[in-house]
Amino acid sequence: MLEPYNAGLDKNPANFQPLTPLSFLARTATVYPHLTSTIYEDRRFTWAETYDRCRRLASYLTALGVGGGDTVAAMLPNVPAMHELHFAVPMVGAVLNTLNLRLDAASLAFQLDHGSAKVVFVDPEFSDLIAEATTLMTGPKPFIFDVDDAAFKDSKRIGKVEYETAITQGDSQFLPRYPEDEWDAIALSYTSGTTGDPKGVVTCHRGAYLNAVSNVLAANLGMHPVYLWTLPMFHCNGWCFPWTIAVTAGINVCLRKVDPARVFDLIARHGVTHMSGAPIVYNALINAPGAPRGTAAKFVQGLIAGAAPPVAVLAGAESIGIKLTHVYGLTEVYGPAAFCAAQPGWDDLSTDDRAQLTRRQGVPYPLQEAVTVIDPDTMQPVPRDGETTGEVMFRGNIVMKGYLKNADATRAAFAGGWFHTGDLGVIDKDGYVIIKDRSKDIVISGGENISSVEVEDVLYKHPAVLFAAVVAKPDPKWGEVPWAFVELKPNATATEADMLGYCREHLPGFKSPKGVVFGELPKTSTGKIQKFVLRDRVGSAKAIST
Amino acid sequence: MLEPYNAGLDKNPANFQPLTPLSFLARTATVYPHLTSTIYEDRRFTWAETYDRCRRLASYLTALGVGGGDTVAAMLPNVPAMHELHFAVPMVGAVLNTLNLRLDAASLAFQLDHGSAKVVFVDPEFSDLIAEATTLMTGPKPFIFDVDDAAFKDSKRIGKVEYETAITQGDSQFLPRYPEDEWDAIALSYTSGTTGDPKGVVTCHRGAYLNAVSNVLAANLGMHPVYLWTLPMFHCNGWCFPWTIAVTAGINVCLRKVDPARVFDLIARHGVTHMSGAPIVYNALINAPGAPRGTAAKFVQGLIAGAAPPVAVLAGAESIGIKLTHVYGLTEVYGPAAFCAAQPGWDDLSTDDRAQLTRRQGVPYPLQEAVTVIDPDTMQPVPRDGETTGEVMFRGNIVMKGYLKNADATRAAFAGGWFHTGDLGVIDKDGYVIIKDRSKDIVISGGENISSVEVEDVLYKHPAVLFAAVVAKPDPKWGEVPWAFVELKPNATATEADMLGYCREHLPGFKSPKGVVFGELPKTSTGKIQKFVLRDRVGSAKAIST
Repeated sequence: MLEPYNAGLDKNPANFQPLTPLSFLARTATVYPHLTSTIYEDRRFTWAETYDRCRRLASYLTALGVGGGDTVAAMLPNVPAMHELHFAVPMVGAVLNTLNLRLDAASLAFQLDHGSAKVVFVDPEFSDLIAEATTLMTGPKPFIFDVDDAAFKDSKRIGKVEYETAITQGDSQFLPRYPEDEWDAIALSYTSGTTGDPKGVVTCHRGAYLNAVSNVLAANLGMHPVYLWTLPMFHCNGWCFPWTIAVTAGINVCLRKVDPARVFDLIARHGVTHMSGAPIVYNALINAPGAPRGTAAKFVQGLIAGAAPPVAVLAGAESIGIKLTHVYGLTEVYGPAAFCAAQPGWDDLSTDDRAQLTRRQGVPYPLQEAVTVIDPDTMQPVPRDGETTGEVMFRGNIVMKGYLKNADATRAAFAGGWFHTGDLGVIDKDGYVIIKDRSKDIVISGGENISSVEVEDVLYKHPAVLFAAVVAKPDPKWGEVPWAFVELKPNATATEADMLGYCREHLPGFKSPKGVVFGELPKTSTGKIQKFVLRDRVGSAKAIST
Repeated sequence: MLEPYNAGLDKNPANFQPLTPLSFLARTATVYPHLTSTIYEDRRFTWAETYDRCRRLASYLTALGVGGGDTVAAMLPNVPAMHELHFAVPMVGAVLNTLNLRLDAASLAFQLDHGSAKVVFVDPEFSDLIAEATTLMTGPKPFIFDVDDAAFKDSKRIGKVEYETAITQGDSQFLPRYPEDEWDAIALSYTSGTTGDPKGVVTCHRGAYLNAVSNVLAANLGMHPVYLWTLPMFHCNGWCFPWTIAVTAGINVCLRKVDPARVFDLIARHGVTHMSGAPIVYNALINAPGAPRGTAAKFVQGLIAGAAPPVAVLAGAESIGIKLTHVYGLTEVYGPAAFCAAQPGWDDLSTDDRAQLTRRQGVPYPLQEAVTVIDPDTMQPVPRDGETTGEVMFRGNIVMKGYLKNADATRAAFAGGWFHTGDLGVIDKDGYVIIKDRSKDIVISGGENISSVEVEDVLYKHPAVLFAAVVAKPDPKWGEVPWAFVELKPNATATEADMLGYCREHLPGFKSPKGVVFGELPKTSTGKIQKFVLRDRVGSAKAIST
């Protein structure tokens, strides 16, 4: 039907190239070779140097036999190596699996096994943990690179090669391997999910490319932003910002951990223009001694994700020179893929009125096709009345390929041609999505997702437990913490200390409940535990709905 | 090889959608329904209204039987209808062929025939011309829509339906047809080319989408720009700016023709932030009586294309409040696909020094893979020495599908996996491309490409002409005008007036030479006319090289 517009008008190397974020680095290294790419402590690289270093590392990986479809894991804070891996790994056709620094050895072992990691890059702070994890693995052990850091004193090596040695020995003229198909995988990121075992979210070059550009539009980055890395790069590949900063030829200001005094110093010293983070990051800054008060000549633009920011955070951030934009998403949509786009006129509102608008989850990212609220039974959008509840769903090119080796979960996630977030929400009268509750019962603590089901699974293993339920309790520091409700077996006894100790033995610290309430659990007539009653008891219902 | 990263991780409607600029309109109409999309004279539309109007028109076209792969032509100035056709036509799967308003009836008839236009939309100023063109056609005649314009007094209808009638009768709930494949054609644009018959450049949804976004990055548009339509939308679809302004939810300020007083009035009245045009547009503004002098509170950002802007234009534009960015491209790469990206520090240079840098053709557009200078024999890039000449070539997703029904020309254009521009250039020491000459001998007059070969073909038909050559002569108003050198047959006689009159009979006015020089033509030993000698004689060599 489209003849003659297709006859003889095929794709060829001149007019078609698979979309890949590798193009951003190649172009920026050519156009802006002498501009700064990365600053970390006393180290500073230009875009030409970063490109050179990535090519060297890629050549070293190739020589090791790492290639198309292999998994390369990284247990690294926000140091230059972590930034470089976002380019060097796809340059050999491999897939980058960034590991969550807060996990325990068992969880890490699961991910390294499940993802068949062929290589892992390790920061000295986590070398003991990775060493332990590899002993727990059941599959082949990965090749380990140590990534020394002068800023971390107790350097301990567990690998075969140090990162800078690989860079030095690599070939700077290595020709990056571009994907044959833009649908090829670029990253693997494990999400806590709703059941015990985490799910491996697979993203691709096309989506990473489009989301990286979408970030520029959503955050109004302009050219040459100075981006402070308060967001962990292990979170959804730093929401694609390593690639976003490449397309805008900006500066990556790296830091190992969020220390408020250090953050304020870096903002002032390097003229930071943009940053991202969970509410806990901004809370820490707002409440830090020595936080600047109304002295900022120009606002730092901050993206905030992970939970709807309360008015106090929005206003507090502005008082220390940071203007926040609320973004929303999850690992399955490359991090945020919705945001509360500001409308002209909002700036004229009072902070309170504005906060009521800006804490909504909002509208699709510029290059995302849709986010909306759908009745999962009829698959029809709910009316724009701010009241009718449905499930928040995404559709478009900024949605994962699926879950690794998990066809059932992939099929369920994409049922009806939409990605199901598991979050319950409404559509406001102006079309903005608002989340009312989380059907998956995730607790978001310090920006980390904790599956309440996973914690409950541990509790249920305790011999004295009959029923257990975990809900989010609002917390001034962490946003939320997991809180346990336990109904003991008849005649069984256990103390709160027993229970908490048991959890800490079987879970990473951040996932362990911070308190336990004993007593009969409220249940429906069919025996299902009524979590909403428990949320009311800990006051969390207020925190996660408007 | 990429298993398990492909197993069960296929594309589906949730995670993949063909890229199309139609997404921009749908999203912006949803997110910013009440913001102004278009202003023209006393008319003003919102994005919701524009979306509604486009869907109505698309439904009307569908009812007429217009669908996938059909060609819809438009002979329209920059009025709202022209803007809307950029969405309504692709909404039915059809291909938009914008006609150059400066063409004569014979050229228009050729394009309508060659493109098999099924429909044509006509402005009353051009109704006589289109009526004549359709009588000259050899193929089936198109269905004609009149597009009335209250701002054009002598309204004359030649069609079956008036545009607003179609809008009124159309269905605002029409479901736009998205392309099944992002490689599907979206537009057909004829270029003057190097031989007599123009070539039909076919572009696709994917390229239009990516170039529209690339414009945002290259021009640093931000959200909600106010874009003044000084660039004809018939030129490479207004370089994709109808789609660019949609993705940024900006305002299209339309106008029938570039009248300096009107332009200054619109800039002030609507707070114009961005505009585009050929040097002739900016020249007209700079030299207009009543041009504002140093009164602009904020610069209008202007893109300038069509020829390297002289220092006088760059400085002159700044004196009237317009800051220029030089862009470079051609119809085959969707308009500009290279630009002279400003480096930090350039703003501190003197206007003269800066102009020497900014008049270069520059670097690839943000989402274009490459523009470089290549030795066409070896297909290797020339050294970055500012001296070694090669052919300027593009590669990437912002390159046409090819030429309609012209496999030979398509093959030649893409030889060796690069798009050959036919322009000769060098690479400067900093990697910026500079055009030195045009191997295709195009004269760019008032922003229009004129093939010197086409004009020579006419001259050669004159019975008194032995040899003829046409070169570009610098012109203060038009940038360049075609100038003829003629060697008469022995004993033949002809005057300049004869020759010019003959050309005007066989060519549109703007293509006819503006002067004729008689005498023996300089030739190589093999008899090839040495155009560079002729260019020196008219002084054009200076104008088109640095």
